[in-house]
Amino acid sequence: MRVRVLALCGGIGGAKLALGLSHVLPPEDLAILVNTGDDFEHLGLAVSPDVDTVTYTLAGLNNTELGWGLAGETWAFMDQLRLLGGEDWFNLGDRDLALHVERTRRLAAGESLSAITADVARRLGVAPALWPMADDPVRTVLDTDEGTLAFQRYFVGRRAQPAVRAIAYQGAQTARPNPDAMAALADPALEAVIVCPSNPWLSIAPLLAMPALRDALATTAAPVIAVSPIVGGQAIKGPTAKLMEELGLPVTASAVAGFYAGIADGYVLDETDRALQSDVAALGMAADVQPTVMHDLATKEALARAVLAFAERLRRAAA
Amino acid sequence: MRVRVLALCGGIGGAKLALGLSHVLPPEDLAILVNTGDDFEHLGLAVSPDVDTVTYTLAGLNNTELGWGLAGETWAFMDQLRLLGGEDWFNLGDRDLALHVERTRRLAAGESLSAITADVARRLGVAPALWPMADDPVRTVLDTDEGTLAFQRYFVGRRAQPAVRAIAYQGAQTARPNPDAMAALADPALEAVIVCPSNPWLSIAPLLAMPALRDALATTAAPVIAVSPIVGGQAIKGPTAKLMEELGLPVTASAVAGFYAGIADGYVLDETDRALQSDVAALGMAADVQPTVMHDLATKEALARAVLAFAERLRRAAA
Repeated sequence: MRVRVLALCGGIGGAKLALGLSHVLPPEDLAILVNTGDDFEHLGLAVSPDVDTVTYTLAGLNNTELGWGLAGETWAFMDQLRLLGGEDWFNLGDRDLALHVERTRRLAAGESLSAITADVARRLGVAPALWPMADDPVRTVLDTDEGTLAFQRYFVGRRAQPAVRAIAYQGAQTARPNPDAMAALADPALEAVIVCPSNPWLSIAPLLAMPALRDALATTAAPVIAVSPIVGGQAIKGPTAKLMEELGLPVTASAVAGFYAGIADGYVLDETDRALQSDVAALGMAADVQPTVMHDLATKEALARAVLAFAERLRRAAA
Repeated sequence: MRVRVLALCGGIGGAKLALGLSHVLPPEDLAILVNTGDDFEHLGLAVSPDVDTVTYTLAGLNNTELGWGLAGETWAFMDQLRLLGGEDWFNLGDRDLALHVERTRRLAAGESLSAITADVARRLGVAPALWPMADDPVRTVLDTDEGTLAFQRYFVGRRAQPAVRAIAYQGAQTARPNPDAMAALADPALEAVIVCPSNPWLSIAPLLAMPALRDALATTAAPVIAVSPIVGGQAIKGPTAKLMEELGLPVTASAVAGFYAGIADGYVLDETDRALQSDVAALGMAADVQPTVMHDLATKEALARAVLAFAERLRRAAA
């Protein structure tokens, strides 16, 4: 299989565009490289929240009411766990739990996270390739005004309330990036890299913190397109805007573009941020303007098509 | 706490009399020592079927329709596990799973099975002391016409269908029996030991296979009373009768009495087996005749009272 489009994403926000891409591309053309910086061990189980969100979303099994987890989920396990005095700050649904138990068992038996992820995706009917960013652990850790917090303790346990002073991606310097992704980035068949509108610092930075992957993204022949997660000075979802303020950045789509300078060749602004095109150009990136807010499958597919067309324009211009 | 009555039991059958005892005795007088020979690791989780059956039964949380597990149980985890290609020969309910996950986590953190069992029992409202027979692993393994099978593979996986040629209790020679049980057996305050009508070879033999516990039972000053699990040549529940045939034994209540010779001072026959009293006496045990089939709570309590009264008669006769 020679991948034509490689998408990079974290969880919920990024998965929307990944779903759009999966609907407009033949499955064999698309691979999705997913953040594992928020993976953690909970109750002795190996939990991979972003990988699972993307898996469930692409399988059409995601819970659209909750915005995370599986559709039709039940919570008997959590109720009983509470009765037993177990930790209940992180919800694990009865169905979702099967994946964590099975992944933990298979990891302990020596299988890799990428092999398990591929098998689970296949069994749940996900057609494109789904790759965790690395089999080696990388862990996002936040330095906050409440002290050092592991990602899920900050994000779920404290609902992203603590003020963040700095972020570390432990293990990223030595973790080996997914070899299939590295091969795709070096392959002339690759036509586009799409950085989905995930949180840059929490969901994409863990990938970029791996030096070999960052270099491969910076030097790949394919155009790299990032889609802004900031629209009109606000985040569509999650703590991106709050985090940017805490990191001393202006909460603008162009400030996010600055984060991708040196990596991205093109940057997609929402229509609301049309006036920021010159700021993006000043960073040495081509700018495109699109409706980026994805309400439903049609808008996800439309954005996916627009982003691919933008990449194609850049690829032809460079040829 | 000085225990006055120590009950020995396995899972479902034995738990009925244990429940009866718990209803007729002040909780501080009763301790229940439970078989762990059928404990196993499944899906990476530490499962203790007999300990859990007794816990759930005494907590009033047991599933009376299924005959095992928790009342009101749901099966979303198993459904999803099946979808993921996981092992589905052993059913784990969504609620029940909380105990296995939490126990596995606490064992890995260095807590003992007996400490975890006591805490779970307390949280679920079980008043009498509930002791696993040992913290060290003892594993019942069956030599069958289908080869060597771990207990649950034989009992649940193959529904006790293979013909059993021999039974081993791996680890029993070196496992240290529960120290509270050993102390109780040496304590003059102990007034009775009740061997519940569990399967002798599968549920009680693992306890007796620990030399120190067998010696303590043989030499305790308190009368040891065993209740026959065979009534009229048939087992009330489970594969006891089939197993006796395979082991070359007559399927009679007195053949079970023979198994307890040297341990039990008294043996309770069902009314149906009144004619076997002389066989029991020939084995050097006092015989009592009672209605031993426990249909409901009233018959469980009645048998508990009768067994305690029998022990009291033997104790006074010996004084």
